[in-house]
Amino acid sequence: MKNFNRRLDETIEKRGVMCVGLDSDVEKLPERFLGAEYPQFEFNRWIINQTHDLVCAYKPNLAFYEANGVNGWRALEITLRYLREEYPEVITIADAKRGDIGSTSEVYARAIFDQLGFDAVTLSPYLGRDTLEPFLRREDKGSIILCKTSNEGGGEVQDLSVVSSQQSVVGVDPGSSLRLWEWVARRVAGEWNGNDNCMLVVGATYPEELKRVRELVGEMPLLVPGVGTQGGSLEEVLKYGINSVGRGVVVNVSRSVIFAEDPRRELKIIKEE
Amino acid sequence: MKNFNRRLDETIEKRGVMCVGLDSDVEKLPERFLGAEYPQFEFNRWIINQTHDLVCAYKPNLAFYEANGVNGWRALEITLRYLREEYPEVITIADAKRGDIGSTSEVYARAIFDQLGFDAVTLSPYLGRDTLEPFLRREDKGSIILCKTSNEGGGEVQDLSVVSSQQSVVGVDPGSSLRLWEWVARRVAGEWNGNDNCMLVVGATYPEELKRVRELVGEMPLLVPGVGTQGGSLEEVLKYGINSVGRGVVVNVSRSVIFAEDPRRELKIIKEE
Repeated sequence: MKNFNRRLDETIEKRGVMCVGLDSDVEKLPERFLGAEYPQFEFNRWIINQTHDLVCAYKPNLAFYEANGVNGWRALEITLRYLREEYPEVITIADAKRGDIGSTSEVYARAIFDQLGFDAVTLSPYLGRDTLEPFLRREDKGSIILCKTSNEGGGEVQDLSVVSSQQSVVGVDPGSSLRLWEWVARRVAGEWNGNDNCMLVVGATYPEELKRVRELVGEMPLLVPGVGTQGGSLEEVLKYGINSVGRGVVVNVSRSVIFAEDPRRELKIIKEE
Repeated sequence: MKNFNRRLDETIEKRGVMCVGLDSDVEKLPERFLGAEYPQFEFNRWIINQTHDLVCAYKPNLAFYEANGVNGWRALEITLRYLREEYPEVITIADAKRGDIGSTSEVYARAIFDQLGFDAVTLSPYLGRDTLEPFLRREDKGSIILCKTSNEGGGEVQDLSVVSSQQSVVGVDPGSSLRLWEWVARRVAGEWNGNDNCMLVVGATYPEELKRVRELVGEMPLLVPGVGTQGGSLEEVLKYGINSVGRGVVVNVSRSVIFAEDPRRELKIIKEE
């Protein structure tokens, strides 16, 4: 079994950097899907069938399925099975932003990797590495840690200056200060990524910070949301985000593509910009 | 409609501080429940019926239901409905540790408060206040923010020294430093709790920090996990955690009670210690 980042790199090389976020809010689906037994699945299949050759990954955000209860959870299960069977090369990312104590993380890892069958999951760093071990030790599965998120107010916590004293991070002098998102980037790259299966989330809405993260983490791949509705630019993401081999980014678009009248056309326009 | 913290306080006054964590891992249920259509619900009902007069709240951790797929999600729905119908006074807490950008948080709030019908939810502070607004503005619902978690490695991130410069926190001089969990405690008490519906998570495994949080946040209630299997002491939690009216803590026990041979007896022993 390949380490996740190796598989991801090969997939990006063949299929490019784009990821489509299957944020299939049942309240926003076109009416023609609402009569189906699993409206979110039928919608996803429609999106997938017309975009699969243009993407390296799909990223359902679990919120939109949980909000639809048992029907939503089932739609998510069937979507994952459909992707595995029809397009096994495409990577599946659970946008779940999970983080819990270790015994509970074990169970989340089981739910997301084994029960649902995702290839990767987004995770919060706040509880520390020990809580993420059930994810990190799965070498063939991706652990995608929140670093500098795309929302406007993320800086309230993430931009705090932290002093690197009690715990050293690779390449930073004890006593010097850096912002919390920089600390997370260094820490994940230097210590949590021992199995070559970690990524970081960095919003396309912060190109300067994206550039800095790339400097801090070497070749490690980044998941970059925020292109499209949130206003980030693909050109800037590619300029500042790629690694030394010209890959290393997964660029996510959600609402602006999936709720477009012609999602394939919309995705092509974004790719060709 | 009462603000959440007011309702919680009245509930604690009548029913005491104990909360039972319905972490009903399907792999650990007694065999006699496994034949039921919804084993996790039948197990929960058994626990609830013998403990409801001893608790102020129940706290299912969503991981254990997600890991069981559609059947688990349905069991969670029925458990919540059962609690609402049979014991409407008892508070229900979704241990979900959610945190996502605002448009997604809207959907999580809908899933947890409206679709499932919980009274409160645990949330991660990492993405900042703007992302939590969909929870915070629900005055009658509780937003329980992670502060100093009970796990051994939580300090890796939470104990970082942060410099309070760009953003002031009430009662802290600009330029002075405090640990990240202290910053979160001050910030939530001073700014996020405008609707009197915020709590903080502080692990019973850190009594010194619990004492400090109580000094920092005034009367705000705390959710304290970590008593029981994780080794925290109820006596210490009460000594250090209560507010000026002798309440203000919700003390959670999960595995050590629900998987005991006689859960009611086990809970009574913990309460009487």
